[in-house]
Amino acid sequence: MDDEILEFAEVEQPDEHARSAAIALHSKLIKPAGSLGRLEELGVWVAACQGQSPPRPFTRPRVVVFAGDHGVAAKGVSAYPGEVTAQLVGSMLTGGAAINVLAASAGASVRVVDMAVDSDAPATRSIGEFKVRRGSGSIDVEDALTDDEARAAVRAGRAIADAEVDGGADLLIAGDLGIGNSTPASVLVAALTGSEPVAVVGRGSGIDDNAWMRKAAAVRDALRRARTVLADPVALLRTAAGADIAAMAGFLAQASLRKTPVILDGLVAAAAALVAEELVPGARQWWAAGQRGGEPAHALALEHLDLEPILDLDVRLGEGTGAVAALPLVFMATRVLAEMATHEQAGVSGPLIEAPAS
Amino acid sequence: MDDEILEFAEVEQPDEHARSAAIALHSKLIKPAGSLGRLEELGVWVAACQGQSPPRPFTRPRVVVFAGDHGVAAKGVSAYPGEVTAQLVGSMLTGGAAINVLAASAGASVRVVDMAVDSDAPATRSIGEFKVRRGSGSIDVEDALTDDEARAAVRAGRAIADAEVDGGADLLIAGDLGIGNSTPASVLVAALTGSEPVAVVGRGSGIDDNAWMRKAAAVRDALRRARTVLADPVALLRTAAGADIAAMAGFLAQASLRKTPVILDGLVAAAAALVAEELVPGARQWWAAGQRGGEPAHALALEHLDLEPILDLDVRLGEGTGAVAALPLVFMATRVLAEMATHEQAGVSGPLIEAPAS
Repeated sequence: MDDEILEFAEVEQPDEHARSAAIALHSKLIKPAGSLGRLEELGVWVAACQGQSPPRPFTRPRVVVFAGDHGVAAKGVSAYPGEVTAQLVGSMLTGGAAINVLAASAGASVRVVDMAVDSDAPATRSIGEFKVRRGSGSIDVEDALTDDEARAAVRAGRAIADAEVDGGADLLIAGDLGIGNSTPASVLVAALTGSEPVAVVGRGSGIDDNAWMRKAAAVRDALRRARTVLADPVALLRTAAGADIAAMAGFLAQASLRKTPVILDGLVAAAAALVAEELVPGARQWWAAGQRGGEPAHALALEHLDLEPILDLDVRLGEGTGAVAALPLVFMATRVLAEMATHEQAGVSGPLIEAPAS
Repeated sequence: MDDEILEFAEVEQPDEHARSAAIALHSKLIKPAGSLGRLEELGVWVAACQGQSPPRPFTRPRVVVFAGDHGVAAKGVSAYPGEVTAQLVGSMLTGGAAINVLAASAGASVRVVDMAVDSDAPATRSIGEFKVRRGSGSIDVEDALTDDEARAAVRAGRAIADAEVDGGADLLIAGDLGIGNSTPASVLVAALTGSEPVAVVGRGSGIDDNAWMRKAAAVRDALRRARTVLADPVALLRTAAGADIAAMAGFLAQASLRKTPVILDGLVAAAAALVAEELVPGARQWWAAGQRGGEPAHALALEHLDLEPILDLDVRLGEGTGAVAALPLVFMATRVLAEMATHEQAGVSGPLIEAPAS
């Protein structure tokens, strides 16, 4: 049963006809060819994902925040105490967290899912529907999850993506929330990109040199364990991720199978995306990178996925904030194709075929 | 009379108390310090401009597009025929231009002003209220404007800024529209930054090598004329700008005197901003750079103004599009300060003072 549910179909690629039609449409709009730069490419990508040109303006962009604690946080790899994860879940439910404010500004709605927060009970019953455990194992010395837990978390992410798409979501963002989560994310990136620990360990939420050294040691130890299961993405999630990141990977993989575009945020989403690309090769065609964050592992992951970030604003908060910050640009890119006049419609002359003699 | 109206008061700087209060507020919000990167800086700038922390969300962002033709376009410096300026004015009035679509997406409204379009009559009486002439002189061989025309154009820009602020606009964007306008803009940037012609001449709306050489020659000739009047900003506008750019300079200068924040778009807005900074030294504190465009003169101008662009999406359309693309980020930055919960309000723990021993 488990194995069956974790089999993934082959992903369909975004529609080439719609992509070509959008490129052709861009050349007819009343602006110099290419003059909207990256906004033109984004509009073409949206058209390809939607399978139609011009693309439809988005009506239900949706952020799902995957919350979980990490045993390795007790090793002093974060600037914050572990209790903050549960506290921030509460803040997200009452609308005071950064992701709530940014999503409201962009016109997106936010859902929080407690996958492995280290609290007595989920903050509400509905957000705990998929909860796998309290915290994940300390990956420097033990597996993050049991095999059953890893499968359950991936399945949860898939079920959440299905429910969101069935509920009308036409663009998805995976947010992360969990003290210490940049440590497993860095391990996953190092494992899947073949990088050394020192190349992936960053400052996370703002650690000092001593904490950085503790984090580097934890990444080194966890990476040694992770490298033994590199060929099996679910085993990798079990060994070195956590229930939150495993669910994100399932969510991102399933979004691609549901042909729903995704904007990636920071390091943790990018690490989950690397694993999702292993689960469903080619899934990355359905994703855009919202931003370039400051974490070195984030850059490595995006390079591996061949995704060029939209923004470069040094946003390194997580929660999906960097992806939501890019959302209005994706909306604009979509509406340009849907709403701008063509030269023919507007009676506006095109470029000169031969430049006039001076 | 003219001289009196062209005297500018000293600009007040954005409020230092509000700036400090916003920085302090950022450190209390439930996120790691600095983790929203550039969005934090933008929010602090908005608070300083508004003189209050937290800042108010913007309610009436306004784009004013300054349209004008340029005699130098007849020298083959553009990829487009001059008639396109009047045609695009028409498209902006019916909502089919890029700026209409982007502004609608961002929640901003657009006004078009015909300063010097080469058409028999303004497209509507209201947009022609400030029209100075049909086209501006070919700056490689003659002044763009007479002295009276230059003063009238600057006055028009000031009057428009006043009317917009009096009408409730709380954030302003100056858009440009005019075939050939990157040539005078490049001359102004070269003149005011002390750069050579080859360092400022770009591809504009997409010219080939031959047109680039014609443009470089025109910039060289115009720059020789412009350098004789460097010390007098209005004389510089008369010699090397055009009525559209002169009005933009007046508009940007007046916005700073009215303590209203501005987002700059591309090369033409940046060139006008350089002149406005000469008219009202310190005005630049009221401006943010929306984007890094591809034109070399744009980068030189922003460096001279010490403004770091928000976006880097290779948008080089003009019309205000690159500034409007950055608008949602400025809105988000503002709402973060206005709406996020503090650690105290949310009961969320702050960072550990001492990291735990591993």
